[in-house]
Amino acid sequence: MDSMTRIERSLSQALTLAKSPDGPPKLYAAMRYTVFPGGQRIRPRLCLAVARACGDDQPALAGAVAAAIELLHCASLVHDDLPCFDDAATRRGRPSVHKAFGEQIAVLTGDALIVLAFEALAHAGSAAPLRLPSMVGIIARSVGAPRGITAGQAWECEPEISLSQYQCAKTGALFAAATAGGAAAAGYDSGPWHLLGERIGEAYQIADDIRDVVASPGELGKPTGRDQALGRPNAVNRLGVGSAVARLEDLVRSAIAAIPPCPGAADLRAHILAEASRLLPRELARPAA
Amino acid sequence: MDSMTRIERSLSQALTLAKSPDGPPKLYAAMRYTVFPGGQRIRPRLCLAVARACGDDQPALAGAVAAAIELLHCASLVHDDLPCFDDAATRRGRPSVHKAFGEQIAVLTGDALIVLAFEALAHAGSAAPLRLPSMVGIIARSVGAPRGITAGQAWECEPEISLSQYQCAKTGALFAAATAGGAAAAGYDSGPWHLLGERIGEAYQIADDIRDVVASPGELGKPTGRDQALGRPNAVNRLGVGSAVARLEDLVRSAIAAIPPCPGAADLRAHILAEASRLLPRELARPAA
Repeated sequence: MDSMTRIERSLSQALTLAKSPDGPPKLYAAMRYTVFPGGQRIRPRLCLAVARACGDDQPALAGAVAAAIELLHCASLVHDDLPCFDDAATRRGRPSVHKAFGEQIAVLTGDALIVLAFEALAHAGSAAPLRLPSMVGIIARSVGAPRGITAGQAWECEPEISLSQYQCAKTGALFAAATAGGAAAAGYDSGPWHLLGERIGEAYQIADDIRDVVASPGELGKPTGRDQALGRPNAVNRLGVGSAVARLEDLVRSAIAAIPPCPGAADLRAHILAEASRLLPRELARPAA
Repeated sequence: MDSMTRIERSLSQALTLAKSPDGPPKLYAAMRYTVFPGGQRIRPRLCLAVARACGDDQPALAGAVAAAIELLHCASLVHDDLPCFDDAATRRGRPSVHKAFGEQIAVLTGDALIVLAFEALAHAGSAAPLRLPSMVGIIARSVGAPRGITAGQAWECEPEISLSQYQCAKTGALFAAATAGGAAAAGYDSGPWHLLGERIGEAYQIADDIRDVVASPGELGKPTGRDQALGRPNAVNRLGVGSAVARLEDLVRSAIAAIPPCPGAADLRAHILAEASRLLPRELARPAA
């Protein structure tokens, strides 16, 4: 089964846990609307690529970790789009959740998706309970305080912001959970796998900054120029487009160099290079070296 | 160590996981502000009473479950108080989190406390990993969709509301997690322990409805008459005070009858009766039978 099919199937299985004729219909509809159709599923695909590189001996567990990471990413988008944060009217080319379902349901959808991520993990984890404590810990740390995506978003409320702490938390943490979680699902020690995810996360953050300045809203599926409008740090505004692209290329090289020893290192390297070639907007893409 | 000390200690240990000089200071401050000083800690005390009745052979795990339940309860209060829901200016006699820290930090505080609950559980669970999958599942189901507190809150967004489903989800679910989670932490099958929590939750909901109508704001630490103002279902408005009090007494009796066989059943019964005697506002309290 290819990665995308596996991810969509794991996400569907997770959503099934939240579905019931006894439940409030709008909440479930909003959860599905948030998760399907998805974006590029870049984090769960990275997670599965790492699990495969490590032998993938518990595929249902790896699928659940990948799904949990995507559910948490989706939850963070719903809350980031709320009126009190970005007040974004669109996301992935459609009305944002609070525009489509109202602000109350949007808050609850984010909450319920966070919970569902852990429920899906526990559900799959009963097949390999000895791996569950470290996996729940990896996933929780990547989302909570002091260094997860919630903390990253909270840096925006501080009068002084440490750019590297902000970006590590807001973007890097979930990528690091993807690599560490993929390795842990396959029974590997997760420690050496964080750095790879952090570097990919940093590359992705710079690519996102570049797209925010350079891409068209149609290509991106959401408004562009938001960082400048909202006074948020952006690497392009700091470095210029050329240096930002060079930095992105450096980070991809150092990510490749950070792949820990594993049976499937060559395929994982190919996965990362193929992903990197899709990071730049069409206007800036060059033929792969 | 008495229950209150044990709960405050478990909560402090959990909060330590969210603290770091690298983290955004306001988020951590708001998380502490939300959790300390607490209310009566009624759910985690119930959880520990059940764990003790079942032998409490893994006290750190029982403490972590009790803390997780309280963290999730606190998270739900922060989100319920938001301007888009109850728009409550005070909670426990102090400014609500969004009044004290702003709406952005309030959203993130709820999110981070939900995540922290699972992190604390995983942290303690590494000592008894075989118990972790069912415990994470119990806790997650009590908070998420389709039957947890998030779903309970989401019923308020539906044009037609099933009162029993609404109250089971909004209040009963976390009480059921307290009894089922306390039993599971002590290695007992959690299944037979749900009904006890559901009945106590229902009694607590009716007591809350009575206090909303009868108590003074000073006694309650939050505004009264909110249900009527917000058009929410309230047992007193439906049944009258006398019948609501009689229903509460019935529920306490049927809760006692639902205690499953366990070595400490007598102490658990005494705990439930003592708690029940504190449920009514001073104006209505009578000497215990």
